[in-house]
Amino acid sequence: MRVGVLTGGGDCPGLNAVIRAVVRKGVKEYGDEFVGFRDGWKGPLEGLTMPLGIDQVRGILPRGGTILGSSRTNPFSIEGGVEQIKANLAAAGVDALIAIGGEDTLGVATKLHDLGVKVVGVPKTIDNDLSGTDFTFGFDTAVNIASEAIDRLHTTAESHHRVLVVEVMGRHAGWIALHAGIAGGANVVLIPERPFDIEEVCRYVETRFETKYAVIMVVSEGAVPIEAEDDSGMTLLTGEKDAFGHVRLGGIGERLANEIEARTGKEARAVVLGHIQRGGTPTAFDRWLATRFGLQAIGAVHDGDFGTMMALRGTSIVRVPLSEGTAELKLVSPEEYAEAEVFFG
Amino acid sequence: MRVGVLTGGGDCPGLNAVIRAVVRKGVKEYGDEFVGFRDGWKGPLEGLTMPLGIDQVRGILPRGGTILGSSRTNPFSIEGGVEQIKANLAAAGVDALIAIGGEDTLGVATKLHDLGVKVVGVPKTIDNDLSGTDFTFGFDTAVNIASEAIDRLHTTAESHHRVLVVEVMGRHAGWIALHAGIAGGANVVLIPERPFDIEEVCRYVETRFETKYAVIMVVSEGAVPIEAEDDSGMTLLTGEKDAFGHVRLGGIGERLANEIEARTGKEARAVVLGHIQRGGTPTAFDRWLATRFGLQAIGAVHDGDFGTMMALRGTSIVRVPLSEGTAELKLVSPEEYAEAEVFFG
Amino acid sequence: MRVGVLTGGGDCPGLNAVIRAVVRKGVKEYGDEFVGFRDGWKGPLEGLTMPLGIDQVRGILPRGGTILGSSRTNPFSIEGGVEQIKANLAAAGVDALIAIGGEDTLGVATKLHDLGVKVVGVPKTIDNDLSGTDFTFGFDTAVNIASEAIDRLHTTAESHHRVLVVEVMGRHAGWIALHAGIAGGANVVLIPERPFDIEEVCRYVETRFETKYAVIMVVSEGAVPIEAEDDSGMTLLTGEKDAFGHVRLGGIGERLANEIEARTGKEARAVVLGHIQRGGTPTAFDRWLATRFGLQAIGAVHDGDFGTMMALRGTSIVRVPLSEGTAELKLVSPEEYAEAEVFFG
Amino acid sequence: MRVGVLTGGGDCPGLNAVIRAVVRKGVKEYGDEFVGFRDGWKGPLEGLTMPLGIDQVRGILPRGGTILGSSRTNPFSIEGGVEQIKANLAAAGVDALIAIGGEDTLGVATKLHDLGVKVVGVPKTIDNDLSGTDFTFGFDTAVNIASEAIDRLHTTAESHHRVLVVEVMGRHAGWIALHAGIAGGANVVLIPERPFDIEEVCRYVETRFETKYAVIMVVSEGAVPIEAEDDSGMTLLTGEKDAFGHVRLGGIGERLANEIEARTGKEARAVVLGHIQRGGTPTAFDRWLATRFGLQAIGAVHDGDFGTMMALRGTSIVRVPLSEGTAELKLVSPEEYAEAEVFFG
Repeated sequence: MRVGVLTGGGDCPGLNAVIRAVVRKGVKEYGDEFVGFRDGWKGPLEGLTMPLGIDQVRGILPRGGTILGSSRTNPFSIEGGVEQIKANLAAAGVDALIAIGGEDTLGVATKLHDLGVKVVGVPKTIDNDLSGTDFTFGFDTAVNIASEAIDRLHTTAESHHRVLVVEVMGRHAGWIALHAGIAGGANVVLIPERPFDIEEVCRYVETRFETKYAVIMVVSEGAVPIEAEDDSGMTLLTGEKDAFGHVRLGGIGERLANEIEARTGKEARAVVLGHIQRGGTPTAFDRWLATRFGLQAIGAVHDGDFGTMMALRGTSIVRVPLSEGTAELKLVSPEEYAEAEVFFG
Repeated sequence: MRVGVLTGGGDCPGLNAVIRAVVRKGVKEYGDEFVGFRDGWKGPLEGLTMPLGIDQVRGILPRGGTILGSSRTNPFSIEGGVEQIKANLAAAGVDALIAIGGEDTLGVATKLHDLGVKVVGVPKTIDNDLSGTDFTFGFDTAVNIASEAIDRLHTTAESHHRVLVVEVMGRHAGWIALHAGIAGGANVVLIPERPFDIEEVCRYVETRFETKYAVIMVVSEGAVPIEAEDDSGMTLLTGEKDAFGHVRLGGIGERLANEIEARTGKEARAVVLGHIQRGGTPTAFDRWLATRFGLQAIGAVHDGDFGTMMALRGTSIVRVPLSEGTAELKLVSPEEYAEAEVFFG
Repeated sequence: MRVGVLTGGGDCPGLNAVIRAVVRKGVKEYGDEFVGFRDGWKGPLEGLTMPLGIDQVRGILPRGGTILGSSRTNPFSIEGGVEQIKANLAAAGVDALIAIGGEDTLGVATKLHDLGVKVVGVPKTIDNDLSGTDFTFGFDTAVNIASEAIDRLHTTAESHHRVLVVEVMGRHAGWIALHAGIAGGANVVLIPERPFDIEEVCRYVETRFETKYAVIMVVSEGAVPIEAEDDSGMTLLTGEKDAFGHVRLGGIGERLANEIEARTGKEARAVVLGHIQRGGTPTAFDRWLATRFGLQAIGAVHDGDFGTMMALRGTSIVRVPLSEGTAELKLVSPEEYAEAEVFFG
Repeated sequence: MRVGVLTGGGDCPGLNAVIRAVVRKGVKEYGDEFVGFRDGWKGPLEGLTMPLGIDQVRGILPRGGTILGSSRTNPFSIEGGVEQIKANLAAAGVDALIAIGGEDTLGVATKLHDLGVKVVGVPKTIDNDLSGTDFTFGFDTAVNIASEAIDRLHTTAESHHRVLVVEVMGRHAGWIALHAGIAGGANVVLIPERPFDIEEVCRYVETRFETKYAVIMVVSEGAVPIEAEDDSGMTLLTGEKDAFGHVRLGGIGERLANEIEARTGKEARAVVLGHIQRGGTPTAFDRWLATRFGLQAIGAVHDGDFGTMMALRGTSIVRVPLSEGTAELKLVSPEEYAEAEVFFG
């Protein structure tokens, strides 16, 4: 067969591992040929291709990023986009397509499948907020980086009587904050699913300083103060839109540190991990998961299992309908947060 | 309640995280008191205790080893051992016991439970070979260390036309070798479940050197050559017993490198990771898993769920009968090995 | 002899290694006794002591922070401070004092020495800006952390057409930024010694995006725009004073990213490493340097070499007058910056 | 100018950083052209070249190995070798040559320079045993890897009453063992410069186990027992020659562990780091040093400073005569060993 591959959306450690597994198994087990589409859906839309074979995937397993490039292009927001894609896939002689990406990329894949394109999906989100799969690759890498950062902060916090705020990724879901907070032994974890009360946070800081000399706080980039607080000088905390109309990735960390210092008089400092969490080499877990997603995806193509998405369930990789995987965001439930709460405060 | 805690068997990153979670939740949610038993089953056997409270578990989350010490003492091989344990538990005023350990430690726990001791188990094996749970803590740390080692070897192997053999842990099961081999992009993975043919290994080395300049081979400490080879000079490969009657932890790596070099004329070198894999700070995944095992274990104590063992299923921690968890070793199946084989050779 | 030890100023990986070396050599070679003074100069000022012997220094080599605690207390700004210190040293039966700290702490040591206190200094600054020594411990750790962060950013930057700004420590001197920028392969390095022209920075960004798709920029926390720019909307860039009158540690990174994005229309994101750089376990180089400083310091005490500070010159540890070591800040010279400039732009 | 570049000898983190710096500065500051010679002296000997320009050196800074390949080919042991080299350099239009390598590679460079070839040398040895320079790149990386391994062993050693032997690189010089031993807090360090007495080592083990429960021992691959011991069953400890006539890289670690266990009855295990130490990404220090060596080397070419080798002195890169740099091995002096001995035992 002749199979197209593309990667869409934000950077995520493990993308190259998926591509390598797809190509290795395709070539060695099935004698497939591959076409690399560049820059997400922009590739099939504009006919941007690159060679993709054993030579191209050599040595890419430990490397972050994606050799195929990425974009946030959505062909459904472009007139005639779908027809162009169909035409370009036909022109490239592509029998089937493997789309690796998050909610947006797989949402496009779902619609294209409904329109007759033979597509198989591989889920990707560093935030781990896709339903249908136990974990997504990239998440373990991000959590480890955040957790190592917290480890390093413990000594400083203890020697210097400070509040240290670590801002981690997680626009809608607090998984990175929650796991890193548990793994790093943080005192406070603030997540988007649970708007926080700045007054309560400050009261906690003051109480803790009565007996201890440090507070380590992990905050998701998407965490927000409760409504009431918006009137008391915390409006900025909700995040600003940038020049592109996206909510700024950074911001809450430094704002929270400023606010706590102003209100409690305790020195507070922010660490903003930003893109460090999504770049660089993947952990062993993420490489293993991404590789197995890739192996299963090319298998699904040969089984004619189109319209499916790969998912981890326990230690098995299974195929679930694309629509199911992207139907709703997987959020931290109150029970999951409560389980960890014994370590906070 | 007054709860005893002990850790048995070999070192494993995450032991301290379990202890900390048990104590934190026990004290904060239930008002429990704790007794630390030292050095595995030797503790309750000989009445060796240590204080165990919030102060003792502070700062231990990122630390390898176990603050309680460990041993391989088996009370069932000592006359009157069980009676001594019962007497010492009573003397310490202990209502229930949490035993953290592997096959041996939990085997003792199972028998004691049958004899009326109120015990809850937490599984621990770096080799990940306990049935009943998707993963055990310590395994992810070991795989990451082995995988980082393989990453480093790639450049040397490529610049210097060598065979590099990495010996990893795994006496009976090849999980560490398999996962690290997949994550590191090894060319050959030899595991205990699949006796290897040294002639076939050497033929592969020679074939690969026709087009490539390096071979990276991962071998479990417990991997063995097939019977037939024992007659052709490979007897040493089966491993020697040490002064304590145990099969030597190391050995197969250096022996295999020697044998390959002698047979093929290609320079071959061994890396023996040994105890590096089981010491030191746990990964975020292992801290998260160990912490959740601990939280669930103290919960099981308060639910009166004795005779159970904590287990990971998907992303949930469930309780399974102790007998089930230790009934049989979880080995790499032929299918699981075959899945990865597309990367080997 | 009976020797007092204290640590002052900000956190720095390697402090515990110095303390351990002092005590180990003192006890084993000279039969010394030690008194630990807590929290920098506050310790001898208020008579705050702790036991300090072989037991206290066991296991602290790899740990960040300082077991003695630290503070920025300056006895010369307190009336009668010097007399109190003399009285407390006498009361503790201390024959000599080893002071480990930066410019401020050693400045106090210098003055006390002039007033007759037997003191030996060990230099400490994560910024590496103390003259008289080739390197100070802590610096190598900070540079490695910053350099690993830059490594991770490369893949994201390349996949996503972004400007990534990494803010590192360095209030007055740009050593961390310069070394991390060289080691990480940054495109732009902005340091305090060389006020930058925001228009020039933006022109560079635009030029680079004509052929490349990413800019990685390292900026010292103390970097400032040139005067002229203050009129064109960049006033905030000079940093704000916090509630304690210090210039805020953070700030320039996020401000610079905002400004670049606003001016060029390219997405720009900041990473603020903050205290991660000064916490946690030291690198091997820093442990080696700190250990050797400690060994030399206790030697200096026994040689009666008071009023000296330990310094690295090549691979030797030498003793220089305290006054010399703190006389002036060691800044990045125009030649040193120019040497690296071939990689920038 | 048209400048040739080659790398010879064993792998060493930082080689690519040197190549990149040479090319970047050569192209940007001087408008140079470059010729890459492949596989050490084999390249100019056999006329094996590859393109070398800005494109080839992009992204290689963090990568281990060498894009030019390497070999141990010595043109002086091949009849007519020197003439061939001169002819091939002329044929390639090369005005000058930069040779990056250790004792052997630079020894050839020295002789070629005497015979009129315009050559500049950059020293490279992971063992740090070249005189004339404070440090060589690669060494810091190796020491960090060994030191991290020792960190991990501490917890296991403590929990399990064991002797753990870590074998590190160092055929003739014990620098890696000494620095890693100091940085990791080892109890015993055995180096080639100081033949050891196995009986003394075992006596120490027994004494230490009277009060402690663990011994961590670092041993250079080239460490040897004292003569007298050869008669008492330790002959194997001197190492065997392999099929290529080299002394085996590994061996002493496992042999020492076996011997100690047999003699003392204490469980002893070996870790053999092997090529892990010389592969993979360089530390920030090594990247900085290698980069500065490269910048200085191309400067020396343009200054007509042939027959020189780059050297680190303090924080400066200086040029020393090639003959001086390779005149004698830099070994650990008795004083340097004694300085650290306070931590051993």
